[in-house]
Amino acid sequence: MDLQPILNAIADDCSKEKERGVVASYIPELAKVSDEKFGMFVLDAQQNEYFVGDAHERFSIQSVSKVLALAQAFGIVGRSLWKRVGVEPSGNPFNFLSLLEQENGIPRNPFINAGAIVVSDVLLSTLKDPKQDFLAYIRELANDQSIVYDNIVAKSEKDTGSRNRATAYLLKSFGNLENDVEEVLDLYFHQCSVSMSCEQLAKTFFVFANRGYCTRRNKYLNINQVKRINALMLTCGFYDEAGEFAFEVGLPGKSGVGGGIAAVLPQQYSIAVWSPGLNKKGNSKLGLNALEAFTTQTNLSIF
Amino acid sequence: MDLQPILNAIADDCSKEKERGVVASYIPELAKVSDEKFGMFVLDAQQNEYFVGDAHERFSIQSVSKVLALAQAFGIVGRSLWKRVGVEPSGNPFNFLSLLEQENGIPRNPFINAGAIVVSDVLLSTLKDPKQDFLAYIRELANDQSIVYDNIVAKSEKDTGSRNRATAYLLKSFGNLENDVEEVLDLYFHQCSVSMSCEQLAKTFFVFANRGYCTRRNKYLNINQVKRINALMLTCGFYDEAGEFAFEVGLPGKSGVGGGIAAVLPQQYSIAVWSPGLNKKGNSKLGLNALEAFTTQTNLSIF
Amino acid sequence: MDLQPILNAIADDCSKEKERGVVASYIPELAKVSDEKFGMFVLDAQQNEYFVGDAHERFSIQSVSKVLALAQAFGIVGRSLWKRVGVEPSGNPFNFLSLLEQENGIPRNPFINAGAIVVSDVLLSTLKDPKQDFLAYIRELANDQSIVYDNIVAKSEKDTGSRNRATAYLLKSFGNLENDVEEVLDLYFHQCSVSMSCEQLAKTFFVFANRGYCTRRNKYLNINQVKRINALMLTCGFYDEAGEFAFEVGLPGKSGVGGGIAAVLPQQYSIAVWSPGLNKKGNSKLGLNALEAFTTQTNLSIF
Amino acid sequence: MDLQPILNAIADDCSKEKERGVVASYIPELAKVSDEKFGMFVLDAQQNEYFVGDAHERFSIQSVSKVLALAQAFGIVGRSLWKRVGVEPSGNPFNFLSLLEQENGIPRNPFINAGAIVVSDVLLSTLKDPKQDFLAYIRELANDQSIVYDNIVAKSEKDTGSRNRATAYLLKSFGNLENDVEEVLDLYFHQCSVSMSCEQLAKTFFVFANRGYCTRRNKYLNINQVKRINALMLTCGFYDEAGEFAFEVGLPGKSGVGGGIAAVLPQQYSIAVWSPGLNKKGNSKLGLNALEAFTTQTNLSIF
Repeated sequence: MDLQPILNAIADDCSKEKERGVVASYIPELAKVSDEKFGMFVLDAQQNEYFVGDAHERFSIQSVSKVLALAQAFGIVGRSLWKRVGVEPSGNPFNFLSLLEQENGIPRNPFINAGAIVVSDVLLSTLKDPKQDFLAYIRELANDQSIVYDNIVAKSEKDTGSRNRATAYLLKSFGNLENDVEEVLDLYFHQCSVSMSCEQLAKTFFVFANRGYCTRRNKYLNINQVKRINALMLTCGFYDEAGEFAFEVGLPGKSGVGGGIAAVLPQQYSIAVWSPGLNKKGNSKLGLNALEAFTTQTNLSIF
Repeated sequence: MDLQPILNAIADDCSKEKERGVVASYIPELAKVSDEKFGMFVLDAQQNEYFVGDAHERFSIQSVSKVLALAQAFGIVGRSLWKRVGVEPSGNPFNFLSLLEQENGIPRNPFINAGAIVVSDVLLSTLKDPKQDFLAYIRELANDQSIVYDNIVAKSEKDTGSRNRATAYLLKSFGNLENDVEEVLDLYFHQCSVSMSCEQLAKTFFVFANRGYCTRRNKYLNINQVKRINALMLTCGFYDEAGEFAFEVGLPGKSGVGGGIAAVLPQQYSIAVWSPGLNKKGNSKLGLNALEAFTTQTNLSIF
Repeated sequence: MDLQPILNAIADDCSKEKERGVVASYIPELAKVSDEKFGMFVLDAQQNEYFVGDAHERFSIQSVSKVLALAQAFGIVGRSLWKRVGVEPSGNPFNFLSLLEQENGIPRNPFINAGAIVVSDVLLSTLKDPKQDFLAYIRELANDQSIVYDNIVAKSEKDTGSRNRATAYLLKSFGNLENDVEEVLDLYFHQCSVSMSCEQLAKTFFVFANRGYCTRRNKYLNINQVKRINALMLTCGFYDEAGEFAFEVGLPGKSGVGGGIAAVLPQQYSIAVWSPGLNKKGNSKLGLNALEAFTTQTNLSIF
Repeated sequence: MDLQPILNAIADDCSKEKERGVVASYIPELAKVSDEKFGMFVLDAQQNEYFVGDAHERFSIQSVSKVLALAQAFGIVGRSLWKRVGVEPSGNPFNFLSLLEQENGIPRNPFINAGAIVVSDVLLSTLKDPKQDFLAYIRELANDQSIVYDNIVAKSEKDTGSRNRATAYLLKSFGNLENDVEEVLDLYFHQCSVSMSCEQLAKTFFVFANRGYCTRRNKYLNINQVKRINALMLTCGFYDEAGEFAFEVGLPGKSGVGGGIAAVLPQQYSIAVWSPGLNKKGNSKLGLNALEAFTTQTNLSIF
């Protein structure tokens, strides 16, 4: 199927949209980004590329990085990871520390902050040079050595990270954090700060669409690991809008407050979209619209 | 694909399983059922039938009925239904009244009891003869007039239903119940009491695999409604084991404490399995195993 | 000490108050009462009487009745009562069902609705003619046969009692309610509906100021029971304003949404005040002011 | 009244007690203390001294220090303190972070850890040399320059303080912590580490029994401040056993995990007791028994 006309039409519709959501402002670097930005990139099973708009401009991937950290940690330690973090939706964003408290320091899933912090702790315990090794992992998946951390973003996250520190110390009080809190958070904040374009994200996420093989056909995950990660994206990838996303879009995916969303249809394609304005739940407003339009028009969703 | 040998092998494996879970016992009618029972029925897109074991024996479908009640109500009132019930996973089975309290009487989704009670209230407000009309709806979907309520089960549910009454009165205190509590619960308990076989369930759920058209090609739901219902089954269909089920099985589905599970792969097949022993989360233990084996061996899942 | 000039001055101050709080309106009978009403009655250890304003006009005592029901039940079953209801503050009025759920159906204390419903259940199980016997108990304590239920209030409570029904059924689901829910609530709603004046309340509560002996010197409670009830009034008598009341007033006491408050200083006096306007926490606004002025000016508080 | 024979009898009874509770062991310094220790000291309104057992041996006062920090902070900043910390019982020890989260970072009262950390933050913002000035305050109240911090205890608290760090960072994320988390906790841990004897505690707490005047008749608090602090001790001084303590003992007081309890009967006496074994709620087991016996036998309680 030639997806290009569909992407063009979607981008056209989005460019006319007046209500573009609200750009995240809790750190200055995110607040600076124009809400006019919009990009989309699709990589199909045959590695045909389709794109539109600002598909090659880099943005802060933020929580999209949680999937990549999970993939690296899962690949290293395997199923033992699930002793330290759950695989179920959390249900309630407003009580996250409460839930962690009630469930004795085992985060509900690796895509809430508490869970991602545990994943960072696993990486810190297993990688030789965690920050470089995590970056190297993404670069390999994307087949792109130009991907880097945005150190200014990382520093801003660090400076405003009281809530993440509270989370990390609560994990530590339950014995579910092996390393020093500041070291874990340093890695975590760097992960969130990675800058990538839609193109780079779509190429990176191809591994989840392609049964664990990256674009160069190297194997990074086994089929069971890919299935687990995709299931987690579907049930937990969109905060407390996961059910809505499953319905509206019908793809495993993950969003970030930078306005990026990456998603896959297993064995068919990977896709990334970027529009910085967020809806009330913290997901890219036009990004959701664009993905909904894409799966509806192509009829390529899991449902 | 000839699915029969796969079903035979799965049934064979299950028959050897010693740890068969625990049969529900909160009402005497459920406790009486032998944990040796096992049945499975698949209806593919071409309506080829494959089955094994006790696939034609009837059992209490219990919460599987929540999908059917939702389908009927959704078909009647459309999207306005979502003003009264949410579409997100609930996360925590142990605090369900708490969550309802915090969220002002709007149940998280139609598959937790509170949500299903709201759906029953909608049916009571819109159907002429609610109990008969709901039964008629199932009979039409299944193309089988022999499906009936089990009035003894319904009465037992009613006699032990304090928690459901607490839920219904809490809904009423928030203004989210239009009808008399006992009338709503009478319909709700009857829905849960419906007796069906795997064959009947698979044929009924065909409507969700077949874009809203039943086996006789009559249309009951539009494609958007089917997509929504399937998304809800995937994210909320298995209590707090939804994430696990999405991974292990990878199908939209719904379980009941009678040991039945119905599931679909959109545009491919509907499937029902029955084994009365439950795991700790309240889902059929061998039912889950069987579905996991089926999707793994056929490679027919959404992931 | 001649308390009359102090009462006169307080009543004078209260009569000038423009901000009189908001009269409860969830049932019509309460909404009808004028917010201009104000009465106060003190009975000292020597049974000298001091009063001012509408001290002889009857009003709906509502939750003040919880202390009287507790006293009667405690007198009958003794310490075994604490197996079914706790003695600690509940902390959070907004999650009351949640707390009950988490603590397996044992209400935090007898002055939250759930606890009072358990107390009513105890009375229903132990009294021959519960409604008449409870009324007889109050009449004896007050030495006043004219005290009656307000059946219209009781009926209104019943008609709007969904939340109390939810509570009662939740108790029942945990096995902490012996009798039929509607029978228990019928007694409970009647208790709340009792009409009494400040004079009658002060005379009734004299038993808590006088070590278990009523005004006619008959013994109803032993000293330990009185101490327990007074401690409960101090720590739990004012919803989530108990700490504030302990500080501002410094007396064990109990308020009701009818605007009444009854309190005691052990071995010194009992006191009742009535002003129908409530503050945001549901306690009588001028009633609190008046009691604060009284204990400050007389220096007769527990602190 | 000659209290000495009463103290002697109580000590005698306690010495025979086999079930002495469990000594706190989360830091090594506390675990070392023998559970055989028992001391008691009473200072009456006329400053007569009565004591028994290990009344002059020092122990770690731990949370008893929260009252002293509150007194100092309240004396400095007055009522504005209540904008940052509440005055109501917390109800639930198991969800403390949850409650803090729900209530937007305003701790329920100054005697839960979150509240005490806010009080420490206030002291840090207002004192020139916070650690020395806090110590000086206690020394003045006690009229005893020998009172010191136990730096080993303070360091141990610091090394195991993940949960307190989680609490402090959560407060900071809500904007309810002005100073650096580690600096606040350094002061907080030092406060908890103060070593005092029953004699010193009773003399220090005399200020709360004596309307704000210390043993040397210097004024430290006004009468309203004392009343507030006493009310807080009564309603919140014993974790989730406050209601039980109010009943069994009937005195405003505060316990610590070092096994110490300090309490007062306003205008009558201050009292301190020490026995290191704790009950399940974390309060000194024999300490509670001793205080209950004391108020029962002397009939000197608030009820």
